[in-house]
Amino acid sequence: MKQTLKIVKIGGNIIEDKQQLSLFLKNFAAIKEPKILVHGGGKSATKLANSLGLKPKMVDGRRVTDKENLDIAVMVYAGLINKNIVTKLQANSCNAIGFTGADANLILSGKRLVKNVDYGFVGDIVNVNGKTIKLFIYNDITPVFCAITHDKSGQLLNTNADTIASEIAIAMSAFFEVELNYVFELKGVLSAIENKDSVIPKINIKKYEQLVDDGIISEGMLPKIHNCFRALEKGVGKVKIGDASLIANTENLHTTLSLK
Amino acid sequence: MKQTLKIVKIGGNIIEDKQQLSLFLKNFAAIKEPKILVHGGGKSATKLANSLGLKPKMVDGRRVTDKENLDIAVMVYAGLINKNIVTKLQANSCNAIGFTGADANLILSGKRLVKNVDYGFVGDIVNVNGKTIKLFIYNDITPVFCAITHDKSGQLLNTNADTIASEIAIAMSAFFEVELNYVFELKGVLSAIENKDSVIPKINIKKYEQLVDDGIISEGMLPKIHNCFRALEKGVGKVKIGDASLIANTENLHTTLSLK
Repeated sequence: MKQTLKIVKIGGNIIEDKQQLSLFLKNFAAIKEPKILVHGGGKSATKLANSLGLKPKMVDGRRVTDKENLDIAVMVYAGLINKNIVTKLQANSCNAIGFTGADANLILSGKRLVKNVDYGFVGDIVNVNGKTIKLFIYNDITPVFCAITHDKSGQLLNTNADTIASEIAIAMSAFFEVELNYVFELKGVLSAIENKDSVIPKINIKKYEQLVDDGIISEGMLPKIHNCFRALEKGVGKVKIGDASLIANTENLHTTLSLK
Repeated sequence: MKQTLKIVKIGGNIIEDKQQLSLFLKNFAAIKEPKILVHGGGKSATKLANSLGLKPKMVDGRRVTDKENLDIAVMVYAGLINKNIVTKLQANSCNAIGFTGADANLILSGKRLVKNVDYGFVGDIVNVNGKTIKLFIYNDITPVFCAITHDKSGQLLNTNADTIASEIAIAMSAFFEVELNYVFELKGVLSAIENKDSVIPKINIKKYEQLVDDGIISEGMLPKIHNCFRALEKGVGKVKIGDASLIANTENLHTTLSLK
């Protein structure tokens, strides 16, 4: 029986709210099992870009990461957000360490190829260095990943935080029984978007396909859930989606995804 | 006989110059011995502060780190500069990892006490976690430190990069034969400031005192050299001061400091 490893991904809504973030980090630090935190960016990057007079570059309604916006992402995600999370986890007696994918070559990605849209400095993950991540975990160090990777040729790349979480989960399932937790603003996957309590407690692949057909899982939720099932298919033991209470009290309302 | 560990500190002049930095990182990556890089900030932080309309806060001619300027230091030093150095070292086959003092609680500092001047969020180093730094080095990982530390109570603090380098050197001399290299814009300590080639090749404590008395070591150089002798007195084997050629070719002109 492999040891359990909990991977938790948090999004911008928690990061933006000082009080929520503080409570979340306290609960995260209290997780007894080995653990990894992955965080998104939130609005701080947009705010900084605005203050500098930079406008988000959009092509065909999609955000493009040019050189200036990459620098801002690196400053805000890898600097401001990541290091403040690390010091606050340390204050909660969690021996955290902050990473981009460049650090110890932990996450190698390739610049997204230009087809119809040139997304700029955006990376798609090629490899997660699970062996080195394991080294840290075996030494009681808790990795905290921001959504920046690199191409091993000296270029940092902006990368989707949900995908970072699921790819790390897949890589670590070679060594651990991995539980992947997506923490976001809702209590789980909802059957009726207007009713915040209409959480679907369990979704397997069959139900997932049906929910997509019915238009209940759509838009932003679609790639998120797709990521989850990819992780399950590649060896991740369990995937849960819910709000911040997910890691504090597992009895709370949330969605659990499974293959069968 | 202990294994040699080379610690190199670089300042703003190299960081600001893309070509110089690129060459330096190539030479640093080629150092065969275990090694640590410590980098200062340079003008990027001031530039970003200016772009945001923030003015450096000065009290009695001394720079004060208020909340906004701390955030900028964290973004620029721990984010932009640190992660770009890490990915470029990785491109040169050096397994680098970027750190603040908060990461793995590597450098604990205390907020500087208010006497005559409140320096704001400035930290004086209390402890360097040499045991964990050693763990990384034994696993062929090259630590890259920026000049941010923390107080273990959730507060990041701006810290002098020269002092970070010398305190790390002192802590690591428990495990290694440490060689501390300060790389800056001059070829070494000069006997005549107007002659850039008037490098004093060797300075021992006696000569140091004489050079201070004669006013040859003064102002900015004084705390730098003081740091060096403190390091030597606390067990660091060798301290060298010179320009970027220092690490590429040890035969080049530079200053070596020693106790006797």
